[in-house]
Amino acid sequence: MKTDIEISQEAALDPIAKVAEQLNLSEDDLELHGKYKAKIDVSAMNKIHQNKEGKLILVTSINPTPAGEGKSTITIGLGDALNRIGKKTVIALREPSLGPVMGIKGGATGGGYAQVLPMEDINLHFTGDMHAITTANNALSALLDNHLHQGNELGIDPRRVIWKRVLDLNDRELRHVTVGLGGPINGVPREDGFDITVASEIMAILCLSTDILDLKRRLANIVVAYTYQREPVTVGDLKVEGALALILKEAIKPNLVQTIYHTPAFVHGGPFANIAHGCNSILATQTALHCGDYTVTEAGFGADLGGEKFLDIKVPNLGKSPDLVVIVATIRALKMHGGIVKSELSAENLAALEKGFRNLAKHIANMKKYGLPVVVAINEFISDTQKEIELLKDLCEKEGVKVELASVWEKGPEGGEALAKTVVEIIEEENNRFRSIFSREDDTLQEKIETIVTEIYGGSGVVYSKKAQQQLETFKRYGWDRLPVCMAKTQYSLSDDPEKLGAPEEFTVTIREFVPKIGAGFIVALTGDVMTMPGLPKKPAALNMDVDKNGQAIGLF
Amino acid sequence: MKTDIEISQEAALDPIAKVAEQLNLSEDDLELHGKYKAKIDVSAMNKIHQNKEGKLILVTSINPTPAGEGKSTITIGLGDALNRIGKKTVIALREPSLGPVMGIKGGATGGGYAQVLPMEDINLHFTGDMHAITTANNALSALLDNHLHQGNELGIDPRRVIWKRVLDLNDRELRHVTVGLGGPINGVPREDGFDITVASEIMAILCLSTDILDLKRRLANIVVAYTYQREPVTVGDLKVEGALALILKEAIKPNLVQTIYHTPAFVHGGPFANIAHGCNSILATQTALHCGDYTVTEAGFGADLGGEKFLDIKVPNLGKSPDLVVIVATIRALKMHGGIVKSELSAENLAALEKGFRNLAKHIANMKKYGLPVVVAINEFISDTQKEIELLKDLCEKEGVKVELASVWEKGPEGGEALAKTVVEIIEEENNRFRSIFSREDDTLQEKIETIVTEIYGGSGVVYSKKAQQQLETFKRYGWDRLPVCMAKTQYSLSDDPEKLGAPEEFTVTIREFVPKIGAGFIVALTGDVMTMPGLPKKPAALNMDVDKNGQAIGLF
Repeated sequence: MKTDIEISQEAALDPIAKVAEQLNLSEDDLELHGKYKAKIDVSAMNKIHQNKEGKLILVTSINPTPAGEGKSTITIGLGDALNRIGKKTVIALREPSLGPVMGIKGGATGGGYAQVLPMEDINLHFTGDMHAITTANNALSALLDNHLHQGNELGIDPRRVIWKRVLDLNDRELRHVTVGLGGPINGVPREDGFDITVASEIMAILCLSTDILDLKRRLANIVVAYTYQREPVTVGDLKVEGALALILKEAIKPNLVQTIYHTPAFVHGGPFANIAHGCNSILATQTALHCGDYTVTEAGFGADLGGEKFLDIKVPNLGKSPDLVVIVATIRALKMHGGIVKSELSAENLAALEKGFRNLAKHIANMKKYGLPVVVAINEFISDTQKEIELLKDLCEKEGVKVELASVWEKGPEGGEALAKTVVEIIEEENNRFRSIFSREDDTLQEKIETIVTEIYGGSGVVYSKKAQQQLETFKRYGWDRLPVCMAKTQYSLSDDPEKLGAPEEFTVTIREFVPKIGAGFIVALTGDVMTMPGLPKKPAALNMDVDKNGQAIGLF
Repeated sequence: MKTDIEISQEAALDPIAKVAEQLNLSEDDLELHGKYKAKIDVSAMNKIHQNKEGKLILVTSINPTPAGEGKSTITIGLGDALNRIGKKTVIALREPSLGPVMGIKGGATGGGYAQVLPMEDINLHFTGDMHAITTANNALSALLDNHLHQGNELGIDPRRVIWKRVLDLNDRELRHVTVGLGGPINGVPREDGFDITVASEIMAILCLSTDILDLKRRLANIVVAYTYQREPVTVGDLKVEGALALILKEAIKPNLVQTIYHTPAFVHGGPFANIAHGCNSILATQTALHCGDYTVTEAGFGADLGGEKFLDIKVPNLGKSPDLVVIVATIRALKMHGGIVKSELSAENLAALEKGFRNLAKHIANMKKYGLPVVVAINEFISDTQKEIELLKDLCEKEGVKVELASVWEKGPEGGEALAKTVVEIIEEENNRFRSIFSREDDTLQEKIETIVTEIYGGSGVVYSKKAQQQLETFKRYGWDRLPVCMAKTQYSLSDDPEKLGAPEEFTVTIREFVPKIGAGFIVALTGDVMTMPGLPKKPAALNMDVDKNGQAIGLF
């Protein structure tokens, strides 16, 4: 069996200008980054957006388990398969963060014969978007601290600075730091911390912005601190939204790459799916939608997190809802949801599969609450038995959804043909009947959280910590109490307890604290500790990395 | 009078592929970054290096003053002028750091009609080299701290970690920090600090490396800490030089841009000229040398700092010495060296000019000690009087050097024609008689410092602090006592006292401390406080920056 990197290095890439031709884009519409990556020029985007809008397919999944689901792989493979059956299809994915690449072997560009390329570039610096976000984030910190140092005209309380610095690295050492030490010429001493770049509010903002002016408007709204009078201080108060937008003027442009089979793929933006909304950029999705008849995109983690946020946060900003949802599952992962440990997953176990199916069933039901047609994609594994596959198909049919085996990892587009055909059939049959799960757009934060917990998670109610209750009071005063909510919850369970697999019932969800992300336009509700700066393992992947005399990567994956 | 940004925005750039044609490079030899920037592919570099090597012109200057010298402007203008008189000429410059751009109005891409373009891109993210260096530097920090956290097999003393983190920003708040706070799961508490990226040893290494394997070898040699037994710990001990080289595999490739007049310019690498050697990359200079008949390059600060380091540190690594040195001076700056304050510089003052000329005379004499032909370029200012110009010419003639007025800022290549002709005439007449100022290559650190202080600075001797004396003993034990020395001295004076303008005499220079840069291959000798992380001013330039709806920069300069 070939490894991902072997398959990727054997692939013969087309010049990106040739890939762009499929989208009726000329070389003048592109800003090339080497031979196989390009950004789309602003004027080209304006031109593209006059085209007809195509159909949108959202790929999401059951709650992830250590057994793996392969959501990116299915997204890429489905895109290739749709092209194979003659549908002009474009893929829209998130771009990976460099930090984890140095830590744990494995990238974020699909796998097997369903990959976006050049995978080495995409996993390293790509077109510099992450670096621009890091720079904008930290320039804001430097400008804020300079304001404190140079007289603090705005009366900012240095103990109440909430804007943190970031690096695109896994660096636990920077989680909690003190800065401004060394006497009066070296700034104002205070506590601070670093998050990983993808956790920056600027990443969420970049991904939700519809153009550079919207980006600037959102940047200006970021709340960075509070005054001694506990009033919020924004980037607009510091008057630096223009400088930050300038730093981001290239990063906001969607990146075009290709799959192994030359399907055009926009890979752009990658916010967390817990403390942020977990989807690629609005601009990339919009550009894809106007370039192809079909766009396949994905959302982070499971349908309860990335899926919910795609529908409740991204869709209102995108102005377009999915025409169909694909839920990815593996038989191995469903057996884990049925209570089986990782070491025993290769043995046939129909009882565990049936028990674990309840997780998938809940996600199917949830997506239907939004009025969306659902197809289940079984990402095929070599250990799946015929009986297991048949049982899973039966169970899906009982839920009234189509299910298809997808073996794109092993077979590429051919392995996704059945899935592609079913998807097209349903989209061509059904009208888009998308509806919000909330009663009104301006439901209060509590009402929205209550709806998500009961309708989507299957919980019985919400508990608020004392701190969260106090924050709700303050938010009313600031006018933030009806903003969209962004749930920060464990991805492993439908509940807020990562141990509760399957489809837990009769649980409450505790809101520990709120984090306002006014620039992004939502309030994050923390249901537990969320790690916003990962660490490195004892033997980091970096130890195996190298480069040969021609500058070729060795041991990257 | 048009501003720099107006002139640059009016310029009609050639596609970079067309500029590359002048160097006999095809589009296949380039990695395009948009339409007007490119990196040179590794295979193309191998091809280029088989060409004949051209002549090398080093542009340096008197000790800088607040009146300004315009070294980059003369470098660019001379390159344009050489092309104008029919000499195939390439420019090799340092690339600017983003940090200062946010702080103080003014970029590092020349001025007037002698600019490299696109200036906005070059001054912002350019092709991502700085970001890659930042990432490599901080990945090393994260891997080092992870080593401490995961058991510290190498026995590193956390109090003796000398590797600092970096950001490409002016951020005084990060000069002195404590990291690893928050309990045992969040790393090992210790003191740390952030430098600006250009101060990273990795920047110096990137600029001195002759290829990617040399880069990796140098990275492995970096000393990051000492053990509890006071033994040096290197990147090689941590086994991460491969990963760092991988992060830098694109950054090591020279960047090609153009001047307003389409002269090819390699803009690559930009280490400090105090704590590092202050020259653009060896690879860029080599590539330029093999592409053109003439290469014009510059070194940081004055001839006593950047100039000396170009000749004593860069030349041995480059394997090629300059064929001629241009020393840039302005009449205004010479008058400051003659004791006149900035507000009175516009008035004619022959006495002050004659007195200040001693600074220029010393630099002329110094360059002659290296056996190099010298030409003085007077960067013309509107306030220069005819009598002043004549006096300066007379003074230069008495020193036996040619002098030319250069008005490239105002007139572009035409304004540099006389300078270009004189330069060519001398180079064609004289043979390269370069010689080192040191007795032997393996002079001890003290011998080298003594030579630089007495021969170049004009001082009477060297004083070592107690700490420096102790370090010299330790370095003997580590085998570092005969490495090249990199002097970290004020740029404003030939002495180590910034107040002593002109050509001070009878002074001693105090070596306060040594900083080993074993990866770069030199020992830095600190003669005073060197600022390695600048701060922002009260009204940072960022406050005036903006971007319009088409993504065009506003207020960048």
